[in-house]
Amino acid sequence: MSEVKNYIESNKERFLEELFGLIRIPSISSIADHKPDMYKAAEYWKKLLLEAGADKAEIYETEGNPVTYGEKIIDPALPTVLVYAHMDVMPVDPIELWDSKPFEPEIRDGKIWARGADDDKGQGFMHAKAFEYLVKYDLLKVNVKFMIEGEEEVGSPSLPKWCKDNIDMLKADVILVSDTGMIAPDIPSITTGLRGLAYWEVEVTGPNRDLHSGLFGGAVANPINVLAKMIAQMQDENGRITIPGFYDDVMEVSTEERELLGRAPFNEQDYKDAIDVEELAGEKGYTTSERTGIRPSFDVCGIWGGYTGEGAKTVLPSKAYAKISTRLVPNQDHQKISLLFKDHFESIAPKSVKVKVTPLHGGYGYVCPIEMDAYKATEKALEDLYGKRPVPVRSGGSIPIISDFEKILGIKSVLMGFGLEADAIHSPNENFPLEQFYNGIEAIIGFYGHYADINK
Amino acid sequence: MSEVKNYIESNKERFLEELFGLIRIPSISSIADHKPDMYKAAEYWKKLLLEAGADKAEIYETEGNPVTYGEKIIDPALPTVLVYAHMDVMPVDPIELWDSKPFEPEIRDGKIWARGADDDKGQGFMHAKAFEYLVKYDLLKVNVKFMIEGEEEVGSPSLPKWCKDNIDMLKADVILVSDTGMIAPDIPSITTGLRGLAYWEVEVTGPNRDLHSGLFGGAVANPINVLAKMIAQMQDENGRITIPGFYDDVMEVSTEERELLGRAPFNEQDYKDAIDVEELAGEKGYTTSERTGIRPSFDVCGIWGGYTGEGAKTVLPSKAYAKISTRLVPNQDHQKISLLFKDHFESIAPKSVKVKVTPLHGGYGYVCPIEMDAYKATEKALEDLYGKRPVPVRSGGSIPIISDFEKILGIKSVLMGFGLEADAIHSPNENFPLEQFYNGIEAIIGFYGHYADINK
Repeated sequence: MSEVKNYIESNKERFLEELFGLIRIPSISSIADHKPDMYKAAEYWKKLLLEAGADKAEIYETEGNPVTYGEKIIDPALPTVLVYAHMDVMPVDPIELWDSKPFEPEIRDGKIWARGADDDKGQGFMHAKAFEYLVKYDLLKVNVKFMIEGEEEVGSPSLPKWCKDNIDMLKADVILVSDTGMIAPDIPSITTGLRGLAYWEVEVTGPNRDLHSGLFGGAVANPINVLAKMIAQMQDENGRITIPGFYDDVMEVSTEERELLGRAPFNEQDYKDAIDVEELAGEKGYTTSERTGIRPSFDVCGIWGGYTGEGAKTVLPSKAYAKISTRLVPNQDHQKISLLFKDHFESIAPKSVKVKVTPLHGGYGYVCPIEMDAYKATEKALEDLYGKRPVPVRSGGSIPIISDFEKILGIKSVLMGFGLEADAIHSPNENFPLEQFYNGIEAIIGFYGHYADINK
Repeated sequence: MSEVKNYIESNKERFLEELFGLIRIPSISSIADHKPDMYKAAEYWKKLLLEAGADKAEIYETEGNPVTYGEKIIDPALPTVLVYAHMDVMPVDPIELWDSKPFEPEIRDGKIWARGADDDKGQGFMHAKAFEYLVKYDLLKVNVKFMIEGEEEVGSPSLPKWCKDNIDMLKADVILVSDTGMIAPDIPSITTGLRGLAYWEVEVTGPNRDLHSGLFGGAVANPINVLAKMIAQMQDENGRITIPGFYDDVMEVSTEERELLGRAPFNEQDYKDAIDVEELAGEKGYTTSERTGIRPSFDVCGIWGGYTGEGAKTVLPSKAYAKISTRLVPNQDHQKISLLFKDHFESIAPKSVKVKVTPLHGGYGYVCPIEMDAYKATEKALEDLYGKRPVPVRSGGSIPIISDFEKILGIKSVLMGFGLEADAIHSPNENFPLEQFYNGIEAIIGFYGHYADINK
């Protein structure tokens, strides 16, 4: 057993106990009541970094939730790695579908079960432990900075300004992030593309109060019927989004590159079986991986209105609501898309209703060049561990702040993620396999070695 | 002041106190937890009838909620009036929109504010008090029976069987019902038509769990997007329902009768202002009154799915639900429509989702001939009170049990309602003007006099 493996093995229980302490803080950034928990999580991270060997660690106020920043500067002349992670998590609805309590982590079947087990407390924590090892055995040959934020799950609204305000402190050669996944436990991969995002809440108002559906039904526009029609119009029969101008800036991927991306292993039957659907659906002319990797999407994330209780209430409701999101591809500007959607959605509303569109958040897509030093160091670290070269993958997910980092700090990110599809991030029963957790720590330790070597 | 008016005036406070006692029982029939309240309401009605002068009053078990039955038989050779009312009420959601608590009745601005103030506790109670007066002053010249049920708001599922089982006890010449409205406080009207109803809950299942909308969005069918598309397809661009065969049995109303019905006063601007909509909407080729009176309608009464909390959660949900109703016109069979809908809705579902359709309730429409003795007696009673002949009106609402009475008991009903549009039945802030309440008692007393005279 290598020294690294040995260290992990003999410190396992402490690692888990420390991680569980972080997970137990219900730091849900989208729910205002959890604001105090964000400070608890920030304090927890400060302690983690100091105990792991940081020269200093501080909690910084932002316009929103706090950021924990820490660093260890070996020598200003050496390259610097800036680790980014987030301490906030998604809400836990529908709570009744969880097999164990979301903020009381449990180990079952070799996995950690909890909200944040993977995204991003589990993955972020791996960096603290890799750093601890490198410091303890004096193996750190580059400078390391940590920036742990608390608003990733709501689109990082305050971090760009905070980055601008602290641009000197954050100076680095690369940003290292573990907030993505790999193809399978035995197929290492590195995410080289992320989708952008635009997200709105829409409110459709019909009559000024709920009406009796018998006395008024058929003569007064029902806001649910209308909202359904409006949503239905947003995509055509080929699954293309109908917002005028929506595809104008979509970077078309060349036939050659599509062929390359198509080499990543994908078994449609397994994919369908895993989510129990008989048929997949999406934009005509593209494969499943392309539909999530290089094409935008349109999803209603939530809808509500009228009577939703037990039994039958005959009502023509006053209001209907939906939370609507689009995933965008690199080169699409989420601010432009946000306005295009708002204009279009309002324009297709019949006069019989009033429509209000509120943008909730947005972010740009991102592409990581595979020629970068840090990408290569990641590749080597994963190859050491898994015995095969990792596959570059375009992910359908969004980490809007990654493209902001590039714009504001001028630093590219490498997305070295250890999540698996079955981890159910954002869903009930989120989990993170212990194997991924330990492998992640080992691979990150490996990264620092290769990165220092390449830069010698 | 007439003796009747005098009696009402001097007993006002007691009347209201007794009515409020009934209203305070939260007898919501669609919510199983309120089952014990149904028995409380049945007991309350039994007491009301006995105190008003019934020879007997009993609570009868049914397969569902209890029925209170009472009677006063003057002479079996005389005509018999069977009074029907219901003791159950609608749910109170959205509770936050009520200005006062729904089950704590208050008098403000000359109105009673509470769930059931009009529908149907207030209106049903008028019959108890009219009966009390007639018995007290020995003015009752016909037999009277009372049948007060507890499942009207869920489509009276148990009453038909109970009627069949008690067909002899319920023998009568006419059924008198106050569960409808009149055009305006100064425009008396009698409802001569009711729409039927069919109501379903639909469940659309996409993936077997909520998915990350970034990782899967664009490649996996979103059940909310799909449900919206399916709902949108249920009506064409002319507002016609697209279920094959839906209009087959619709009784087309002659041009002549449409002209007659069109004479009922209607001010479109006032109607729009009252509900604050800029434009009305409905089936092409029909007026607003026709759209609710003689044409079927299609309304989504409720919809829900995905994330509906605060802020932005990016999720591709597993399930989406809707409560869907159609109002039917006389001659449409709700059981046939229920099957047609189910078949059609399931047939338009893409293979990427699973669809489940659950019928929740249904009922037939009804037409009351204006040549009936009891209709004429009602006409006269209202003319005495208001100084003008009441207008016959086809209502858009449904009281499914009315057509069942005709089928099972062979008895026609007269719908002598005193509700007003502003009463907000089924909505927050349901109310009933005291003037309508007192006028109702007086008109019902008048009805018995005229009905006895006509049948002399």
